[in-house]
Amino acid sequence: MSSSASKMTTGERLHRHERYVPVDHTRVAFNAGFWKSWQETVRDVTIPTQHKRLEEEGFLEVLDFDNPPGPLARPIQPSGLSMQHFFDSDFGKWIEAASYTLKNHPNPDIEAKIDAIVEKLEHGQMEDGYLNSWFIRREPEKRWTNLRDLHEMYSMGHLIEGAVAYFEATGKRRFLDVMIRAVDHIIDTFGPEPGKLRGYDAHEEIELALVKLYRVTGDPRHLKLSTYFVDERGQMPSYFDDEARRRGEDPADYVYETYAYSQAHKPVREQNEVVGHAVRAMYLLSAMTDLAFENDDPSLKDAADRLFANLTGRQLYVTGGLGPSAANEGFTRAFDLPNETAYAETCAAVALGFWCSRLAETDLDGKYTDQLETVLFNGALSGIARDGEHYFYENVLESHGQNRRWKWHYCPCCPTNIARFITSLGQYFYTTKGNEIAVHLYGANAAEFDLDGTFVRLRQETAYPWEGDIRMTLGLFQPTDLTLKLRIPGWCRRVRATLNGRDVPLVAVKGYVTVSDTFEDGDELRLSFDMPVERLYAHPAVGEDAGRVAFRRGPVVYCVEETDIGIEPQRLRIAPDASLEARYDADLLGGAVVLEGEGFEAATDGFDGGLYRTSPPALKPRPFRAIPYHLWANREAGAMQVWLTEK
Amino acid sequence: MSSSASKMTTGERLHRHERYVPVDHTRVAFNAGFWKSWQETVRDVTIPTQHKRLEEEGFLEVLDFDNPPGPLARPIQPSGLSMQHFFDSDFGKWIEAASYTLKNHPNPDIEAKIDAIVEKLEHGQMEDGYLNSWFIRREPEKRWTNLRDLHEMYSMGHLIEGAVAYFEATGKRRFLDVMIRAVDHIIDTFGPEPGKLRGYDAHEEIELALVKLYRVTGDPRHLKLSTYFVDERGQMPSYFDDEARRRGEDPADYVYETYAYSQAHKPVREQNEVVGHAVRAMYLLSAMTDLAFENDDPSLKDAADRLFANLTGRQLYVTGGLGPSAANEGFTRAFDLPNETAYAETCAAVALGFWCSRLAETDLDGKYTDQLETVLFNGALSGIARDGEHYFYENVLESHGQNRRWKWHYCPCCPTNIARFITSLGQYFYTTKGNEIAVHLYGANAAEFDLDGTFVRLRQETAYPWEGDIRMTLGLFQPTDLTLKLRIPGWCRRVRATLNGRDVPLVAVKGYVTVSDTFEDGDELRLSFDMPVERLYAHPAVGEDAGRVAFRRGPVVYCVEETDIGIEPQRLRIAPDASLEARYDADLLGGAVVLEGEGFEAATDGFDGGLYRTSPPALKPRPFRAIPYHLWANREAGAMQVWLTEK
Repeated sequence: MSSSASKMTTGERLHRHERYVPVDHTRVAFNAGFWKSWQETVRDVTIPTQHKRLEEEGFLEVLDFDNPPGPLARPIQPSGLSMQHFFDSDFGKWIEAASYTLKNHPNPDIEAKIDAIVEKLEHGQMEDGYLNSWFIRREPEKRWTNLRDLHEMYSMGHLIEGAVAYFEATGKRRFLDVMIRAVDHIIDTFGPEPGKLRGYDAHEEIELALVKLYRVTGDPRHLKLSTYFVDERGQMPSYFDDEARRRGEDPADYVYETYAYSQAHKPVREQNEVVGHAVRAMYLLSAMTDLAFENDDPSLKDAADRLFANLTGRQLYVTGGLGPSAANEGFTRAFDLPNETAYAETCAAVALGFWCSRLAETDLDGKYTDQLETVLFNGALSGIARDGEHYFYENVLESHGQNRRWKWHYCPCCPTNIARFITSLGQYFYTTKGNEIAVHLYGANAAEFDLDGTFVRLRQETAYPWEGDIRMTLGLFQPTDLTLKLRIPGWCRRVRATLNGRDVPLVAVKGYVTVSDTFEDGDELRLSFDMPVERLYAHPAVGEDAGRVAFRRGPVVYCVEETDIGIEPQRLRIAPDASLEARYDADLLGGAVVLEGEGFEAATDGFDGGLYRTSPPALKPRPFRAIPYHLWANREAGAMQVWLTEK
Repeated sequence: MSSSASKMTTGERLHRHERYVPVDHTRVAFNAGFWKSWQETVRDVTIPTQHKRLEEEGFLEVLDFDNPPGPLARPIQPSGLSMQHFFDSDFGKWIEAASYTLKNHPNPDIEAKIDAIVEKLEHGQMEDGYLNSWFIRREPEKRWTNLRDLHEMYSMGHLIEGAVAYFEATGKRRFLDVMIRAVDHIIDTFGPEPGKLRGYDAHEEIELALVKLYRVTGDPRHLKLSTYFVDERGQMPSYFDDEARRRGEDPADYVYETYAYSQAHKPVREQNEVVGHAVRAMYLLSAMTDLAFENDDPSLKDAADRLFANLTGRQLYVTGGLGPSAANEGFTRAFDLPNETAYAETCAAVALGFWCSRLAETDLDGKYTDQLETVLFNGALSGIARDGEHYFYENVLESHGQNRRWKWHYCPCCPTNIARFITSLGQYFYTTKGNEIAVHLYGANAAEFDLDGTFVRLRQETAYPWEGDIRMTLGLFQPTDLTLKLRIPGWCRRVRATLNGRDVPLVAVKGYVTVSDTFEDGDELRLSFDMPVERLYAHPAVGEDAGRVAFRRGPVVYCVEETDIGIEPQRLRIAPDASLEARYDADLLGGAVVLEGEGFEAATDGFDGGLYRTSPPALKPRPFRAIPYHLWANREAGAMQVWLTEK
């Protein structure tokens, strides 16, 4: 056992006073409304069916260390990688997602399933702590020979995150100890010290996992290792070059051509544009933001901020989706945001949420939490079907009906990622610092806070995101000096607040208003955000959206589906002055606000079997309906469009 | 030597009276104007530099049969195919392109280079006639084991076309005899007869090459083999399934998943949609159209017509480009015509030209020759740079400047294809039947016809396509009864014709007007096609072009390049009533008509570093200029757009 392990207590957090620390997600109960429904779906359907898929698809077979390896579940790609190389990451993420449900909703069956996996992992772990099912079973002699392509530390990172979550949920240390031993092995193997490999994994993930581990163990070596990986990244000459030569390969033959694919083309502090594989970029930036705080390193925060500005000003879909290209699963160039071929991987959107929440921990600024909210309600949530057991890997903003949700994916990284986002959602709603509670997100829930011994309850009653009225009620044992930092969403043009019925003057600083008072039990704070239907227009450099309009109401971006209007929405034309009505439709997939208005249909007659003619298509009136983007592709197959053509 | 070879005479054609037979291209001299310039460029720059590339890139090394094979010039793909498998096709096509120049412009150096290749081919040809450099040198035991993936007959087809062209140009029989022996071997190996393999090549090409060969040799076995291949195609159970099993493979593992990729999913007469790889489809359809005539088989013509209607009504770019997807180098679904990701391979556009000309040979209908002209001036010609030594493989209709022309391509099928199209261009201008001359294309040239012993000269003087006025002068030894069939282009709304100054009444039937007369030497026929700038609109089901307009003048489709207007054309807005002026710009890349008008620029200010806002971008006046699409990407790198956003 590692010497560090003895220091731990469940839930212990460092630096509680220096940053806005996320509330423990188990202390936020979504007891009604929007997220209650989604959390129930994920808990009752998603988590069990995902375990079933992991079994059916051979993901758990890789842990049968006592038996010879079976046939490859996934073939080797030109990069040398098989999806099976990182199957560990998938059940690691599943354990994490499931663990977040266990404290408030104990489930002996799920817990037994996790214990079974942990037992196999512990059994298979090598003497020296190494842990990766592919290499142990298939190519032990090749371990640590290809950090560029084979995701060893990426997989271990997800196992670490799973182990931390399971430990925090159950207090069981076995998995955590396994992963601490694995990290000890990595510390022995990698680092700047003589005799160690000066490497880092091309697929970021372990960096942020090590910070999570550090916050549980308090072991400074865990933080140091994460810091080393981030600092070493992109240093030249590249470790990946040396490593390729040691394998007898020419580094110039790298299948992705540039280390920008892995954000390893230059040191992280010198990077000014988000580049390469989007999930990798978001995991790296999450770790950089964590380390900026933990190491009190403003140079990392500066870099993260530059990259945040680049992302949000140049490379982000209106849904919060990111990484437009399938070729590199990532970024291309500024303003390249194609709709129908959008890759916009669910994992990247989820990871953007992770990053935004971390940014707001040390720098309470609505620009971060606005993006967290956007991605949560749109580009991330679109990755899971309303039934909780079908998924999108790619989240296009336009379709001709060819995009259908998958029961399982060839590379199933996304299903468990969106699952863990939803099961741990409470932590993104609130952070605390001293006697301050920052409220980032709105939605019906009841939360509990322990502010240095002062117990505070806060209940939100609201139909958000369908309505903008929120009633917050405080539960206190005695009158208490509290400061509430309330996010005023960036989309909101008019807000009114009352405390116990009296108007509260609202001055937002960086997107948050401060309400400080000696609060009493039962104090009631009401917020009323105007939530009209808004028309959105893209920056003119986004050629794809030229002449097009999108609709948003509150944080929810809308789309039009063929099934609602009887024609492909690509044939719809919207007048610049068209008025839209918002209406709650209780029958739509569990209930949602839909938008209704009058549009025009570009008529197909008169083309005489041809494709082109010299007069524009005639326009005929056609009413239309728009539904929340995250709910698309849950009904009949058909075309869909977020950016609609203006008349 | 094959018994058939003795029957040949250079240039002999069968069925002269039953169809409109293309004029021998050597008898059409482009002595001025548009095509003179292009033919000179191809002859003086393209043909020599292509041979240089073939040498530099190792394409000719594959013929060094006496030496062990060198390292692979191209790696093996997941399909099992290396580009090097079909290097033969590339120099075959180069020989063909070069041969078309030799009769009117003898070039001993080029002829010697061809002879050197022929000598090596003859030397390497196997005893039994088999000829393919890959298999002979590398895997002789694997020949004819994978028609699904490895292009053996495709390569031989291009060698046959090259051999026919070289024979017709020089009268030298050596190459032709080599290929006749190769075909004899194929006849011995494949066919419906017991003991033969009942196969056909997945990549069509040999089918049309065999018809060309038959028209030179008169050997009915050559026609029969082509007919067999076309009739056998798509019959079930599939030969490709059997063949895969013989290789010990599971047919279900086929990398392209469906034989529709090769138009082999069902018998050709049952196909109703153009599918799969676009070049393959066009080569097949060319052969089907040839065979419809040669075998007097209306069922093939019916199928070709159905597929022509499907292509032109559902799957064709306004430029004549086709096959939008890189994934299968081909077709996807009706109305899927993305602009920026258009694959629209040059080869496919050239092959569409081949097919259209064949359709018009037996069925004189302007709908075919309209497409021939469209693709010629736009989607095919865009594949070669004005300097004659840079190329596009993909012909996008929109770019942000990332598309630059290549000096050579990884898979260099396109450069030699566009070269042979241009060097043989005369044959597409005129066809004859009895005493009829059908004039399909307009452009300055002097042509000679031998109509059953009657010698006719016809000269076109015109600045076409920049102007619509054509003066045609007849040269005759004596007064001659002639029928001229003059194409009235589909784009033309108003035409006037005079014969020796007197108006000629014009009644177009299927796009052609008939002028029959006893003509005398010096008779002058003037045609004047109105050629205003036209706005084009796409069928509303083409979502990509919703709210957009394209410009065409005569047969020439226009585009806007960033270099001409100082902003990305994606930011340009065109008013529905904007008037455009056409002006000849002698300084633009050798001279071209450009279009000039007043547009608007979507201003980028006011976005405050963000991507989306609730008000549309402000519009500021901005003049713009459009240039012929085929001339794009010949100057500074920059963005380009064919379909411009309307205001």
